[in-house]
Amino acid sequence: MVVVAACQIPASIGTNDHGPLVAAVREAAGRGADLVVLPELAVCGYVFHTAAEARAAAQDLDGPTVTLLKSLSRDLGVVLVCGFAELGEDGEVYNAAVLVEDGSVRTRYRKAHLWGREPEFFRAGDQPPAVVETAIGRIAVMICYDLEFPEWVRLTACAGADLIAVPANWPLDHHPVPDRAIEVVKAQAAAATNRTYVVVADRCGRARGVDWIGGSLIAADTGHLLAGPATGVAAPAVLTCHLDPATARDKSAGPHNDVMDDRRLELYQQF
Amino acid sequence: MVVVAACQIPASIGTNDHGPLVAAVREAAGRGADLVVLPELAVCGYVFHTAAEARAAAQDLDGPTVTLLKSLSRDLGVVLVCGFAELGEDGEVYNAAVLVEDGSVRTRYRKAHLWGREPEFFRAGDQPPAVVETAIGRIAVMICYDLEFPEWVRLTACAGADLIAVPANWPLDHHPVPDRAIEVVKAQAAAATNRTYVVVADRCGRARGVDWIGGSLIAADTGHLLAGPATGVAAPAVLTCHLDPATARDKSAGPHNDVMDDRRLELYQQF
Repeated sequence: MVVVAACQIPASIGTNDHGPLVAAVREAAGRGADLVVLPELAVCGYVFHTAAEARAAAQDLDGPTVTLLKSLSRDLGVVLVCGFAELGEDGEVYNAAVLVEDGSVRTRYRKAHLWGREPEFFRAGDQPPAVVETAIGRIAVMICYDLEFPEWVRLTACAGADLIAVPANWPLDHHPVPDRAIEVVKAQAAAATNRTYVVVADRCGRARGVDWIGGSLIAADTGHLLAGPATGVAAPAVLTCHLDPATARDKSAGPHNDVMDDRRLELYQQF
Repeated sequence: MVVVAACQIPASIGTNDHGPLVAAVREAAGRGADLVVLPELAVCGYVFHTAAEARAAAQDLDGPTVTLLKSLSRDLGVVLVCGFAELGEDGEVYNAAVLVEDGSVRTRYRKAHLWGREPEFFRAGDQPPAVVETAIGRIAVMICYDLEFPEWVRLTACAGADLIAVPANWPLDHHPVPDRAIEVVKAQAAAATNRTYVVVADRCGRARGVDWIGGSLIAADTGHLLAGPATGVAAPAVLTCHLDPATARDKSAGPHNDVMDDRRLELYQQF
């Protein structure tokens, strides 16, 4: 069993304040976390007004955010997944995330499905999530809206992910959230459909008029919620739970079925 | 706006009792239903022990169940979707469903994803759901476990379905159902992911030791529940609600996004 954490923290554009991130990671580590998932654009914030603002927030893999993550991962012995604005080698700005283990960047993922005004600020990624064999299981990273495309989740699960770590910023567009936020429903379905753990770190902290669902959650490979979502107004939160990533390698569903083998691939491609 | 109904009724093997079906359809019609969805294998029952038993229950499109559905659809002015055991022209037995409008079978669908011991009793279908242009909107039919394959739902939505009618028999394997039954979560996600209405008619009535979730529901094209699911032990129920099928033709998600256009098809096929 490992301890998994999803940290829901605030971020503000232009402040470059790493304080909430550090505090949340330390709290999670204090609770024994082996894996800590942080939000999309966790430090630099999300609600950009201009491309210049996003570019000013962007950094490369040697920048302060990733350097801090590397240091925290080594010092605390935790695997970290965290979103940031990346200035690529190609000069483009990406909505990206890293998975950091023992002081090293194991993978960098660039969001492939952009939401809202993001195309004004970010270039879309064009590579699927890598599945990283970490000390605690096979982990893949995708970002926010990516999770709402079953095709993307399916190919990631088929590539062998035990757990999908999802930095997110889920804007709140209904007050109050009716029933259960549909983003939460989709995250649970993504887990259950593929028999893969899903960990979403949403954010909090009203920013430039935007509120957030605060829907951070940890879904079992059955789709059931092991932790979260927080309810009501999005507030800082560190969710933790125990889980065994290896159970995700068993795709059976009862004695006669298997959620992967039962696909009718020949029919999906024909029509 | 149209009135849609999901009827949760019991069925017993060998009795050939159409009474619960007729009563439920009449109740729904009495509430103004334009579309009535009934369970999988709605009259003949589900829990077969042998292939001979399933074959004995099977009938062709001129058999008593479909003949009754045709008559009810004409007499009551309702579109009916109902599951039955079909004896095909090829001599095979299928877990099938028909959509009947104004006395005519508009489409017959054969379940493509078989659950549990069904492969002992039924041949799997190999055709996607047809999208039928009815007087009340574009309706497609799939059966139970089919709905848990996002690929199948996606291709049906892409073919133009406003509403997917899903006869189901959801066996209960957890007592009590933890949180929300994951079949319900998947149905909601299927609707939201494709911006398509989803109507599930589950069954009730303990049969040969099997209980049922009783999760009949009507999900809006946002994924939110318009009716159901019933809670607790599965009991007879006629769920109804008003909805406008045509709203499902708008796939936009906020001012900048579209759940279909935002797919990165070139990436899904590459990996």
